[in-house]
Amino acid sequence: MAASNERIREVVEAYVDRVGNGTSAEVVALYAEGATVEDPVGADVLTTREQIATFYGNLDGLEQETSLVEARIGGGQAAFLFRISTKVGDQTFTMAPIDVMTFDDDGLITSMKAYWNADTDMTVT
Amino acid sequence: MAASNERIREVVEAYVDRVGNGTSAEVVALYAEGATVEDPVGADVLTTREQIATFYGNLDGLEQETSLVEARIGGGQAAFLFRISTKVGDQTFTMAPIDVMTFDDDGLITSMKAYWNADTDMTVT
Repeated sequence: MAASNERIREVVEAYVDRVGNGTSAEVVALYAEGATVEDPVGADVLTTREQIATFYGNLDGLEQETSLVEARIGGGQAAFLFRISTKVGDQTFTMAPIDVMTFDDDGLITSMKAYWNADTDMTVT
Repeated sequence: MAASNERIREVVEAYVDRVGNGTSAEVVALYAEGATVEDPVGADVLTTREQIATFYGNLDGLEQETSLVEARIGGGQAAFLFRISTKVGDQTFTMAPIDVMTFDDDGLITSMKAYWNADTDMTVT
């Protein structure tokens, strides 16, 4: 049976929380075997566990804060807007992607696609 | 050549504006031949011009207001959060779906998928 909308919301909240406060391994643990990641949209799609682990591994050690802004969940799928800010020295890089995810019956993420644009959607303060 | 991000933003803004202030024919004119519509996500996918015209035709004659809240555009694709309120008698039904769209080289919409849930994402005032 497909994961419930409640279960999917929990996973979305866990994802946003772990991207901000967790290790990359904790983020990757939310993904199903065989999952794909396209971030940002239009980039090469990551298709192996190793590629996905490397992608999130880039976040390890960064000082980040995340918050879920809006989530819409239906039909076993989710789209959500979240805010992520990264402190690098005196500067803070902030962006707010819209992520779209599909899930397996256990609520593990089977695909993630992040809509944002490095040219227009990042602010530095 | 793929539609530019600027062109896609114009089409997204036109879509939100026409859903609020235009006729259904003006909305449907933003779609490419062969386009698909899934609204809400998980519903049957509309695949013919007639189905899409009927879908938007349901909006004709309603008193609606729309506004674009956030749009993320990249790789020839878009995801955006917009607000739509519909006045029916003394009541106003408000919701804010996240729509995901793909486009052809001219910037016509080739697919639309609307993430929202009738059970949880509609407020009545």
